[in-house]
Amino acid sequence: MKFPKGFRGGAAAAGLKKSGKKDIGLILSDVPCAGAGVFTRNLFAGANIAVCRRHLAKGTMRGIVVHAGQANACTGTEGEKVAEATAAAVARLIGADPAEFVVGSTGVIGVLPDLGRIEAGLKSIAEAGLSPEGIEDVGRAMMTTDLVPKSAEGTCRMGGKQVRILGLAKGSGMIHPNMGTMLAYILTDARLPRPELRAALRAASDASFNCMTVDGDTSTSDMLVALANGAAGNESISAEELVKFREALTKVCQSLARQVASDGEGATRLVTIRVAKAKSAADAKRAAMAVGTSSLVKTAIFGRDPNWGRIACAVGYSGASFDPKRVSIKLGGTRIFAQGRPVAQDRAALAQYLRDEKEVRMEIELNAGAAEATVWTCDFSYDYVKINAEYTT
Amino acid sequence: MKFPKGFRGGAAAAGLKKSGKKDIGLILSDVPCAGAGVFTRNLFAGANIAVCRRHLAKGTMRGIVVHAGQANACTGTEGEKVAEATAAAVARLIGADPAEFVVGSTGVIGVLPDLGRIEAGLKSIAEAGLSPEGIEDVGRAMMTTDLVPKSAEGTCRMGGKQVRILGLAKGSGMIHPNMGTMLAYILTDARLPRPELRAALRAASDASFNCMTVDGDTSTSDMLVALANGAAGNESISAEELVKFREALTKVCQSLARQVASDGEGATRLVTIRVAKAKSAADAKRAAMAVGTSSLVKTAIFGRDPNWGRIACAVGYSGASFDPKRVSIKLGGTRIFAQGRPVAQDRAALAQYLRDEKEVRMEIELNAGAAEATVWTCDFSYDYVKINAEYTT
Repeated sequence: MKFPKGFRGGAAAAGLKKSGKKDIGLILSDVPCAGAGVFTRNLFAGANIAVCRRHLAKGTMRGIVVHAGQANACTGTEGEKVAEATAAAVARLIGADPAEFVVGSTGVIGVLPDLGRIEAGLKSIAEAGLSPEGIEDVGRAMMTTDLVPKSAEGTCRMGGKQVRILGLAKGSGMIHPNMGTMLAYILTDARLPRPELRAALRAASDASFNCMTVDGDTSTSDMLVALANGAAGNESISAEELVKFREALTKVCQSLARQVASDGEGATRLVTIRVAKAKSAADAKRAAMAVGTSSLVKTAIFGRDPNWGRIACAVGYSGASFDPKRVSIKLGGTRIFAQGRPVAQDRAALAQYLRDEKEVRMEIELNAGAAEATVWTCDFSYDYVKINAEYTT
Repeated sequence: MKFPKGFRGGAAAAGLKKSGKKDIGLILSDVPCAGAGVFTRNLFAGANIAVCRRHLAKGTMRGIVVHAGQANACTGTEGEKVAEATAAAVARLIGADPAEFVVGSTGVIGVLPDLGRIEAGLKSIAEAGLSPEGIEDVGRAMMTTDLVPKSAEGTCRMGGKQVRILGLAKGSGMIHPNMGTMLAYILTDARLPRPELRAALRAASDASFNCMTVDGDTSTSDMLVALANGAAGNESISAEELVKFREALTKVCQSLARQVASDGEGATRLVTIRVAKAKSAADAKRAAMAVGTSSLVKTAIFGRDPNWGRIACAVGYSGASFDPKRVSIKLGGTRIFAQGRPVAQDRAALAQYLRDEKEVRMEIELNAGAAEATVWTCDFSYDYVKINAEYTT
């Protein structure tokens, strides 16, 4: 992992996870950062979400605390107090303002995280010392049902300097059984004004995390936060460089989103759905999301069944505007549907493709315009039902 | 089964189902009927859907032909020809106008139904003779993955006469593997002008089939058609009687919708979700549908897990407007969530409720207004994945 300059991290086991694994992480910037965030729109948003929004609105940031085990959602005013106290505990340790910290939280909904354990955990992280490599530990500490930690890196040039972007994410189902899930953190050493960081993050989020679905549920605790600390030393930034930064940031977020979809609960396949030649970008997204959230499409992929009927059907009810007689569908590059009707096909070869490839690609052409969208999802297996039905708190 | 006057039916095995079971049915009215229909909005609507719309728009109706095995969707202009020719075949047999017939079709998408078999099937039905009891056979002939035939009856008074309403439905998943599914037919001997029948049917549909979800997919072939033949002999109909008729029709449709949800693919539980005290009817429906389509809620019910977190979370992202601190949730009459937080509960008793009752009831109070909505769904089991993943055409 190549670390952006000026960030250090560390993690500890504070007893918040039943497993006894590391469950609290801290990322600090040596200098104040510009910060930006995108948060869940769920009305039952975690108590920490409101705290994060307030802190990011105030001014510069110094770091991120994240803990896993309890989501701190549906915990009322006590929940907000715990989130505030968590930020205050870090602030005390390093001599900063509590408002300079974002607090991420994931785990069981409705259970108040234990503040004493959080404080003890933070203290032990501080005592052990923070390091760039410690940032990887933070990525692991925030895992819940994730099978693997997720990270992505990017780079670009700004004002004659090399700028690094590092992303960490967790998320398995959009919500695990009672879990608020998708957390993503972006660290960059670019010097970037807050409005530009915000705009870049929102655009990157729309083209990545907002194009990903595991089970269609939007968690109470989802957040994507970016910190830019300027340690790369770029004095200026041109319009062209800003475009390059946005592209690099979007790629990092897309890589994370694909990793989250691949690691969906019970997933055996990553499914990439590209809708092209749509009347509008909204239509393209609508059609791709309808396919990506269809339980029938997802179970067909799990069954290695090249089922064009379910794909066409989902596109048909998506609300996108098109002439059904002009639609074509490809699976793994093979045309299976054209001009609104199925194409004679080598089913054995298609089934083989579904058995052999870990990533399944669908391309749908609506022939109604020039817009396009890509959505990432996973297949729907017995294990999804098992994981989500056999869970008991 | 109590049959409305003046309707007769019959069914035959025409070789459209691989199983060799009865797969084509015919319902005839002795006299011309007022007709009304509600159809799928899927852009890949079956070829027969356009034909039905045209026929219903023309004038009075004489009957319904329905066949199962091939959905006649994604079959292009040839599909429309088959649907038209099917209506023409019945018309020839009984000396009527082809436009007086509705043609229902369910089964595999993309395969053209065999017109020769359809014609032979209709001929053998006519030769065997039609009868009121034969209407039950039509209900069975249109089954595909349904485990049981579905019917419901209602009655009311109009102009001094007793009026009967009989409903037949099929549907298991909203779409079975490659199948266009939900078909419902309403027969009544009421004498009712077409505009009133249409309005009553639309209202009944909104409060029944449009409040039901199995897997959220909207099939290519869904239809609900009502025929009113006036054989009850009512000369007049008062405004009050019309209200009673609407109520009776709605109850028949709700019973059919509940039966369809109960018989959802792999379903082990019927789930009734009532959202009350919403700001608007649309909000109530939105919240109830979000819960009813959540894979996480549905797998929890299959796991007999009284998981308030998943219910609250779905309500939270539904788009309904409310104050999360005022929401309460009951499961089987037991309050499990109040004022935005979980309530201490007897988990064992709740799990017992989920194990013992075939129908699970959820009540969600948003405390944001006075509107309400009820949605029916089923749980989400291993068998849903099995049925939908192991299917191969």
